[in-house]
Amino acid sequence: MLTTAQSDKHIYLDYAATTPLDPRVREIMLPYFSSEYGNPSSLYASGRKAARAIKKARETVAQVLSCGAGEIIFTGSGTESDNLALLGAARAQRALGRHIIVSAIEHKAVLESASRLGRDGFEVSIIPVLSNGIIDMKLLAEALREDTILVSIMYANNEIGTIEPISEISTLIKKHRNGKNVPLLHTDACQAAGFLPLNVDELGVDLMTLNGSKAYGPKGVGLLYKRSGVRIEPVIVGGEQENGLRAGTQSVPLIVGCAEALRLSEDMRSEESVRLTKLRDYFITRMSKEIPEAHLNGHPSNRLPSNAHFSFSHIEGESILLMLDNVGIEVATGSACSARDLRPSHVLLALGQDAELAYGSIRFSFGRYTTREELEYVLSVLPDIIKRLSSVSALTIKL
Amino acid sequence: MLTTAQSDKHIYLDYAATTPLDPRVREIMLPYFSSEYGNPSSLYASGRKAARAIKKARETVAQVLSCGAGEIIFTGSGTESDNLALLGAARAQRALGRHIIVSAIEHKAVLESASRLGRDGFEVSIIPVLSNGIIDMKLLAEALREDTILVSIMYANNEIGTIEPISEISTLIKKHRNGKNVPLLHTDACQAAGFLPLNVDELGVDLMTLNGSKAYGPKGVGLLYKRSGVRIEPVIVGGEQENGLRAGTQSVPLIVGCAEALRLSEDMRSEESVRLTKLRDYFITRMSKEIPEAHLNGHPSNRLPSNAHFSFSHIEGESILLMLDNVGIEVATGSACSARDLRPSHVLLALGQDAELAYGSIRFSFGRYTTREELEYVLSVLPDIIKRLSSVSALTIKL
Repeated sequence: MLTTAQSDKHIYLDYAATTPLDPRVREIMLPYFSSEYGNPSSLYASGRKAARAIKKARETVAQVLSCGAGEIIFTGSGTESDNLALLGAARAQRALGRHIIVSAIEHKAVLESASRLGRDGFEVSIIPVLSNGIIDMKLLAEALREDTILVSIMYANNEIGTIEPISEISTLIKKHRNGKNVPLLHTDACQAAGFLPLNVDELGVDLMTLNGSKAYGPKGVGLLYKRSGVRIEPVIVGGEQENGLRAGTQSVPLIVGCAEALRLSEDMRSEESVRLTKLRDYFITRMSKEIPEAHLNGHPSNRLPSNAHFSFSHIEGESILLMLDNVGIEVATGSACSARDLRPSHVLLALGQDAELAYGSIRFSFGRYTTREELEYVLSVLPDIIKRLSSVSALTIKL
Repeated sequence: MLTTAQSDKHIYLDYAATTPLDPRVREIMLPYFSSEYGNPSSLYASGRKAARAIKKARETVAQVLSCGAGEIIFTGSGTESDNLALLGAARAQRALGRHIIVSAIEHKAVLESASRLGRDGFEVSIIPVLSNGIIDMKLLAEALREDTILVSIMYANNEIGTIEPISEISTLIKKHRNGKNVPLLHTDACQAAGFLPLNVDELGVDLMTLNGSKAYGPKGVGLLYKRSGVRIEPVIVGGEQENGLRAGTQSVPLIVGCAEALRLSEDMRSEESVRLTKLRDYFITRMSKEIPEAHLNGHPSNRLPSNAHFSFSHIEGESILLMLDNVGIEVATGSACSARDLRPSHVLLALGQDAELAYGSIRFSFGRYTTREELEYVLSVLPDIIKRLSSVSALTIKL
């Protein structure tokens, strides 16, 4: 079906799908893959040593989030954290109400959790976004009800990179309810780590999902911030780990690596954000100038420094992806989580795009190793690719 | 509270809690922690390479289990696999019936999943075991009903090492139902890997939980065998990974490591089983001879080659554990998953032990690096420890 890349180049522009492991994170993980193998639940010396490593990781994350170490629950992925936040919080608050609110552009982990709650007797309101991808605050305010127990709005969108106004949303929710039975606010911040501030009090969130593998940490671990006092039910049961909220032997190397990755990303955050914002804006400007078919999706400036997402009229995204792959450039259509799903992206449809345009979209996402030279190379090959695919498409239409 | 071990020795006898990583497994994982970081859901070259690594891992596991590669679902832990088997299968079969059966000595991951199903409108029968830990087949036969949809009996118990007759149970279930609406059979085989045959057809199971981290693989990954055609619902939702049955970015290094660990354990199985059975029987014989307070739990011979589990009358297990730890010997009271749970073990209570005896139990579990010299050392220090603790206990009783 596909031939091997004909290019020696390897230009990775899909950091939003996953990032390489930071070599410093790798170093800190390695001992736990050899001599340090104790089970952190065990009571003897090597078990206690493992437990201390996890405790330290929890404190490291707590510093990044400006929260208490006891408010961090380690899980197996960002997806699992989203599930735990939605299913866990809704089930634990069901006596207070059965209404939850999510945005139309949430990650599938949130949308499908909400849909499962819908089947289990909860009522779900899905709030539309404006054409720039920012949530419609007016409709959000109108959707809040007496029996609303949970609102879940992502911090930065994984496809189009739009940044949602989480602290404003928090204020709105609190104001609306006059402090009486305030619904919990969850945010999926997987894409925000390393780019946006993660102070949970300034954001005003009760629950926040994070994921090491989008921030130069290992795959197979995520975490959920849960504000002290907020009640949730576990999704995975059968052990007292993670304060009884996520059963299963803790993976010490992954947890240690996840924490260190988040710490390093936070350290590099302001510098990297400035650097990538410049690269991003340069790329977007050149793209818009040189490829008339390219249409930028999402908010022009209120977006992740790492994200440039375009639709190309009358061209299939997958064809662009494969032709770029052939010259050593790796990008995504939509998100990796739904790369094999042939339906148009729910995020682009939520922006009001028609299905035809939504099919032809490409996400370029930049990261720590992205250079201007790499983008120059993309800009040197992409116009020709688009031209070739346009003519094929025109031909097809004529036939 | 605890002082550091005063001994230079490190004798690890808690392989049932977790095993060190096999250096060969570590080697095979390492590239995926550096250059090979693609997201297996991505469509370009590095993503396809990651997807191929997972495909190969699936085939490796399939060979160990004599099943199809498409019947393997990778998860985040053995606990998660148990949850997926119980919750997933019961929810998907609910139209056929609402009755499920588990044994009294299942891992908490099974028991708590069953209890959650109980709250959700299912009826759960818990089958007792005989005093040797083997399931009461007569009571199991009586418990089977027209609306029984799922039976979950572990392959080998994690505390007392007793091996359950899974293929006999499979035959019983099929016979009883005359082939009409046969309930699904799940077995938790986490402790069996590396010691017992894992051929799913010979066992006659529909679902089987396995865990790399008990078989010299990494922590943070498990798997569920699901017979082709058996319907289950996912527990973690929000992505099409693992055939839509377990959402979340797959951790390539962990999956590759888990598969290799299971392959190597299977390779070494018969040799290691013979070697450890000898060591185990030697240890049990000496213990029974030299420590009159020691009472062997579980079946004398129908037990894992790696397991020797004793109760000590009138002595607290935790005190023994800490005194052994102090001389460099690491053992467990009960299982690691409930090490911080102060209630007596549900497994020992199921054997008919009174709570006082159940408190004072120690699990010695052996593995690939266990030597006769290590056991000699244990046997040289343990009688004295028991004597000292007995006299303290006698004193306490007198006071």
